Amino acid sequence: MNSVAPIVDVLQGKIAVGSTISVQGWVRTRRDSKAGISFLAVYDGSCFDPIQAVIEKDLPNYEQDILRLTAGCSVKVTGKVVESPGQGQKYELQATQVDVYGFVDDPETYPMAAKRHSIEYLREVAHLRARTNIVGAITRVRHTLAQAIHQFFDERGFFWLSTPIITASDTEGAGEMFRVSTLDMLNLPKTDNGKVDFDKDFFGKEAFLTVSGQLNAETYACALSKVYTFGPTFRAENSNTTRHLAEFWMMEPEVAFADLNDNAKLAEDMLKYVFKTVLEKRADDMQFFAQHIDKDAINRLESFINADFAQVDYTDAITILQNCEAKFENPVSWGIDLASEHERYLAEQHFKAPVVVKNYPKDIKAFYMRMNDDGKTVAAMDVLAPGIGEIIGGSQREERLDMLDKRMDELGLKKEDYWWYRDLRRYGTVPHSGFGLGFERLIVYVTGVQNVRDVIPFPRTPRNANF
Amino acid sequence: MNSVAPIVDVLQGKIAVGSTISVQGWVRTRRDSKAGISFLAVYDGSCFDPIQAVIEKDLPNYEQDILRLTAGCSVKVTGKVVESPGQGQKYELQATQVDVYGFVDDPETYPMAAKRHSIEYLREVAHLRARTNIVGAITRVRHTLAQAIHQFFDERGFFWLSTPIITASDTEGAGEMFRVSTLDMLNLPKTDNGKVDFDKDFFGKEAFLTVSGQLNAETYACALSKVYTFGPTFRAENSNTTRHLAEFWMMEPEVAFADLNDNAKLAEDMLKYVFKTVLEKRADDMQFFAQHIDKDAINRLESFINADFAQVDYTDAITILQNCEAKFENPVSWGIDLASEHERYLAEQHFKAPVVVKNYPKDIKAFYMRMNDDGKTVAAMDVLAPGIGEIIGGSQREERLDMLDKRMDELGLKKEDYWWYRDLRRYGTVPHSGFGLGFERLIVYVTGVQNVRDVIPFPRTPRNANF
Repeated sequence: MNSVAPIVDVLQGKIAVGSTISVQGWVRTRRDSKAGISFLAVYDGSCFDPIQAVIEKDLPNYEQDILRLTAGCSVKVTGKVVESPGQGQKYELQATQVDVYGFVDDPETYPMAAKRHSIEYLREVAHLRARTNIVGAITRVRHTLAQAIHQFFDERGFFWLSTPIITASDTEGAGEMFRVSTLDMLNLPKTDNGKVDFDKDFFGKEAFLTVSGQLNAETYACALSKVYTFGPTFRAENSNTTRHLAEFWMMEPEVAFADLNDNAKLAEDMLKYVFKTVLEKRADDMQFFAQHIDKDAINRLESFINADFAQVDYTDAITILQNCEAKFENPVSWGIDLASEHERYLAEQHFKAPVVVKNYPKDIKAFYMRMNDDGKTVAAMDVLAPGIGEIIGGSQREERLDMLDKRMDELGLKKEDYWWYRDLRRYGTVPHSGFGLGFERLIVYVTGVQNVRDVIPFPRTPRNANF
Repeated sequence: MNSVAPIVDVLQGKIAVGSTISVQGWVRTRRDSKAGISFLAVYDGSCFDPIQAVIEKDLPNYEQDILRLTAGCSVKVTGKVVESPGQGQKYELQATQVDVYGFVDDPETYPMAAKRHSIEYLREVAHLRARTNIVGAITRVRHTLAQAIHQFFDERGFFWLSTPIITASDTEGAGEMFRVSTLDMLNLPKTDNGKVDFDKDFFGKEAFLTVSGQLNAETYACALSKVYTFGPTFRAENSNTTRHLAEFWMMEPEVAFADLNDNAKLAEDMLKYVFKTVLEKRADDMQFFAQHIDKDAINRLESFINADFAQVDYTDAITILQNCEAKFENPVSWGIDLASEHERYLAEQHFKAPVVVKNYPKDIKAFYMRMNDDGKTVAAMDVLAPGIGEIIGGSQREERLDMLDKRMDELGLKKEDYWWYRDLRRYGTVPHSGFGLGFERLIVYVTGVQNVRDVIPFPRTPRNANF
């Protein structure tokens, strides 16, 4: 028996020329020469490129099998590794045997037939779209980014933390959340005053899908110093945009003894680390994105890695926007939340670099952010990237119990609901900071693919939980 | 300004003796000598041990601050790294300055006061329990196991895949699932025939939390060859046992062109790899488990790593159990699902090694498992580990459309619900296999901690979704 090799090993020259091996994968294309030689492009997902297998007509199953092969058929090709005489790849296979695992039912209607498909169409066949160049490349890049995130934090002494998916609290206050229940909806238990009796539900209270693991992560940062979450989060927003998913993955580091500057530095280091990693490890896929999806894909990351991050106070950013020549759809004044056009102006036109905007008005930020001495702003930060705008949002957390309580009172939040969060401030409180990064938005930034629905295997959006 | 170092760096001798540095963390204990010297044990979570800081009474805030320090207070200690004269650690800090970040409100009632707490009590203060030795050690071990899993698969050319959490399908058929909905329960929309009108719900149909990512993972394995999932899964079972959680993390590799033997080999390699990693990287924490929780904790993993896995057919395993001397509570006959006592007998008494049991009766296994030629068994496998029983379950998947359809008919599953799963068999089908590993059960096995509720930060169980 010959050994089976991933196609990437053959194409990268890890298999000695002259040795006989097998590869296994799916046919991308078949081309037959008049001289009775067939050329199969076989893909196994281990790298961007398929390998070329050269098949002569004297193979016993040439007529019966080879000439029936179409895009999507699965094969095992055994043959000798030879240097490729043609342009393009350096190595190819001179086949001595081809075994077919599975043909394609009715090649005419095969949804992944070898032609160009619109990215919208591919969503409707999400169970097959990983077979395309683009979704294969996205999957490998997604994997590499996730690994790079884990490695970055591991090397720096962070511990990965799984915060709960099902929760009875609401981190941001008044978020739009999915309810999780096992109650029989046609026979709902009711309380005396006519409400649903969630005491009868699985968890004995009303429960939801989490919108963020931050508050939970703070409890662990206030014990083990450096932690991060990486897991799914949810928004029940009825948003049909290219940037919203009902279910998406988020990464949230939380660091004790870190202030807002440490936080900004961590965000910068992390982004540069993962961009560097993806350029190194997925050069083939990034090349594809640059050639076919967004010609700026590689340049954008290289510029980012080499840029010195700018830093600007929110208040100064407002002045810059008010005094600039640009026309904005959304009027600018102190107190507004920056719109995407403002963010992109700052990063792309004014600073021409990634920018950390700091110290936002308290009224547009969450209750847990640390109050600055001015009494008007909080120690929040957003990282704005050229080409996309906000990519990371974070803050230093309010570690002073009296200040936290004051903010909760102002916002009408009940202290008893947050008893455990307040405990962190009662028992050995420490300054601490963290941020959140939406993983799909990161992949959109890296690949240039426009819609978050195309960078997660099975997207969940309003009226869509297919597959 | 002196640099701040993680305590692990000081204790491991990475900071030169004689240099002045700061550490930041929480006080574990304070001891005062009659000579007017205080000894603080300061912990920052970077490793199992706290560092000892030696504080002389001539520090300006000695009376005011140092003598008030109790367990849980947060401090920054600046001082000179010196060799420790005492037993135990090699290095300690000769403090020149101690800054207090936060005291503890009422040390008498501090839930984590320096005494032994029952593990059940700690669940009630899950927001603080990471400050204890045991939960700190579990968290570091959990992190290291997760990283090792990612590394193992990355090194072997697998791609990590996030399969959907919210799903409209039910992998196992008739599982107990949590419903996900945004419908107003007090004003439920109804159809003409009195059912809940899920067309009005967020996803336009009834939706649930996933019980497994397997079927989705198969679609990607049948495109990119080697993938794995690592994410949360859910069971709405009303089980109050030491082995059940409503929300737990699962790892599921799925491999194209792999048969049941390849699958068993992958499971063996993976388990040995992660056990080796945790023994190497978390020696301090494993030492703690062996000393205080389960004296066999380290031996068990070492034996596992050095063992040759046994393999046995289910049918032969039944014969072994029927012919052995042991008395079982659950009677043994061909066709039963093995109970924990049977599994442990096989691994601990008979084979004295991890065992892969293969080829189970079709009637106790899921529809997607590959039918064997005997027509009675399917290519399923369970890995049984000494000391716990089943730790991994998997199978070769049925890749033949006619056989799959036959099984679905037998079980009354509707083909239209699985159209996309069937497509994988219509278009270039390939033999493929995979397995599932419950992450919390793995941690229980590694640490010797008895209850899965103690190895996940915030456990979700019947009537409990606190924090």
